[in-house]
Amino acid sequence: MKKHNFYAGPSILPQYTINKTAEAILNFAGTGLSVLEVSHRSKEFVAVVDEATQLFKELLNIPDNYSVVFLGGGASTQFAMVPFNLFVKKAAYLNTGEWSKKAIKEAKMFGEVDVVASSEDKNFSYIPKGYTIPEDADYFHITTNNTIFGTEIKYDIDSPVPLVADMSSDIFSRPLDVSKYAIIYGGAQKNLAPAGVTFVIIRNDILGKVTHHLPTMLNYKTHIDKESMFNTPPVLPIFAALQTLRWLKDQGGVEEMNKINVYKAGLLCNEIDRNSLFEATIKDEEDRSLMNICFVMTKGNEDKEKAFFEFATSKGMIGIKGHRSVGGFRASTYNALPVESVKALIATMQEFEQQNS
Amino acid sequence: MKKHNFYAGPSILPQYTINKTAEAILNFAGTGLSVLEVSHRSKEFVAVVDEATQLFKELLNIPDNYSVVFLGGGASTQFAMVPFNLFVKKAAYLNTGEWSKKAIKEAKMFGEVDVVASSEDKNFSYIPKGYTIPEDADYFHITTNNTIFGTEIKYDIDSPVPLVADMSSDIFSRPLDVSKYAIIYGGAQKNLAPAGVTFVIIRNDILGKVTHHLPTMLNYKTHIDKESMFNTPPVLPIFAALQTLRWLKDQGGVEEMNKINVYKAGLLCNEIDRNSLFEATIKDEEDRSLMNICFVMTKGNEDKEKAFFEFATSKGMIGIKGHRSVGGFRASTYNALPVESVKALIATMQEFEQQNS
Repeated sequence: MKKHNFYAGPSILPQYTINKTAEAILNFAGTGLSVLEVSHRSKEFVAVVDEATQLFKELLNIPDNYSVVFLGGGASTQFAMVPFNLFVKKAAYLNTGEWSKKAIKEAKMFGEVDVVASSEDKNFSYIPKGYTIPEDADYFHITTNNTIFGTEIKYDIDSPVPLVADMSSDIFSRPLDVSKYAIIYGGAQKNLAPAGVTFVIIRNDILGKVTHHLPTMLNYKTHIDKESMFNTPPVLPIFAALQTLRWLKDQGGVEEMNKINVYKAGLLCNEIDRNSLFEATIKDEEDRSLMNICFVMTKGNEDKEKAFFEFATSKGMIGIKGHRSVGGFRASTYNALPVESVKALIATMQEFEQQNS
Repeated sequence: MKKHNFYAGPSILPQYTINKTAEAILNFAGTGLSVLEVSHRSKEFVAVVDEATQLFKELLNIPDNYSVVFLGGGASTQFAMVPFNLFVKKAAYLNTGEWSKKAIKEAKMFGEVDVVASSEDKNFSYIPKGYTIPEDADYFHITTNNTIFGTEIKYDIDSPVPLVADMSSDIFSRPLDVSKYAIIYGGAQKNLAPAGVTFVIIRNDILGKVTHHLPTMLNYKTHIDKESMFNTPPVLPIFAALQTLRWLKDQGGVEEMNKINVYKAGLLCNEIDRNSLFEATIKDEEDRSLMNICFVMTKGNEDKEKAFFEFATSKGMIGIKGHRSVGGFRASTYNALPVESVKALIATMQEFEQQNS
């Protein structure tokens, strides 16, 4: 039976990425060796890092005064690296969910943190608006897509201070004006690569202002200066990322991805709104994520949740259980998820409705 | 032509690991999904982490009061994590090479570091002995195998203070008395897995003594408490590590590995000592690494270095160029390197000698 992969992350990757990676595990770039067992300093792998960095810049139209690096440690390590590199006297954060909270916790170890707004009062079911970013903050941090709660800031905001964005789960889902950001970072395991590699886009002039103890591996400059090769980078995840970047370019880039993502999310949201058994947890369409679509059973139908989960599983739907903080269901519709999978989920919802009304 | 993989790291892995990983990239544990795109919280992947942790403990005979965790960030991140978790007032380090120096540099950011001995006076060509470990140090740090220089501490030393060892390049190469160590860590990309995962073995009672700012991701307790799943771990590298651990067990474990490693290194060292064109850079046999065997052209034959490199390359030898700090050649003879490859290198050295004498 065809499986439909709705995992929130690590999540579906293009079949192209999977096939090319499987090939390289057996014979990498004609070396006769596996990509799992080649030196990161071999000319064949240096070419992989170089092309991945170049395509990353090209696809997101990154200005020349920015660097792109690939690191280990996940976005969770970035929660500490950002203040290690930028925090001088005060930072500002927008609190839109669990990952924002974790980022705020790390920053607080460095000093004063101004949480300019929070949607925690309504279980993070909306994106706060109308807040004021303090002009004396060293930086302002946002989480653009909230994987757990299904909200997303789908536009590039204006900030009077350097803007830092965790884009772990929506990078490459839409065109960006990178010039509005000082740092964009994320774990790659949603729209880009298997788990194990973290990307960071850094405006070079933002660095060098802190005076506190800065461990070598947590210093962005270490990795910029050595072009992601200060130490042994996560070779296989970077190789796979390159395949996805090539696929993205071949698909027409982030403009085309955004069109398809809007279409896919629209199809599913329409069905959730129409279907008498389901309702969306995010009421304001403007705040709804294009990547993670959360829904629960309608009032009076809560007892059918387990039955729907089992029915959907029997139809090949994988990873649709909602996060425990929200309950219900979550369909993650990342770049690599085909329209066909969205339609299969919709058909499953409709069939379940017919059987249960 | 058959390739012989002598890379220093990332380096040769068992064919079993490569084949099982290639299979799982196409269909992981019968899920119909790639191991690159499954949730780290799926029951199939949780089983991988559990079995890898269990086999790690079994193969190294790790006592019950120790934890094993799998992290990202490489051994270079451990250079900072060790003092972050253990440094209270003073640390002691043994300086046996480039990696020791990098570890010392990070510790110095925390306060007084006593470098008890160093072999830098002779380009790290021996292991210092007869030094005194200060009893007031919070811990004593060693690098057991010096990949660049080809020296190795092949026994478990006694330390009056908690012993911390970077075993990036010799873990699983011999039986260990883990009870003599407080922490053993390493990048996995030599004897265990592809690059991207770091292992740490920690005696639980060593933690919780520092009072300084300890970022969440740099706190060993974070990862111990969540059994390596605090954040998304490097899924594919951990999957591959499990395959190598299964292979290791099937081969007879670390006792058997050590016998084969002694045999392989002996064959090659004998040829280096015998061959009129080559000489070992490490004179004292006791200090010679079983993992990285360094040799240069003998006096008067320095001009043949490039010719030998080209000749060996033409015979399928890969990765034998010595590190720039040493020059000449380095043959890395990790667990997965077959005896056949050592014999092929020896035959190449003998043929080159015949052609050039």
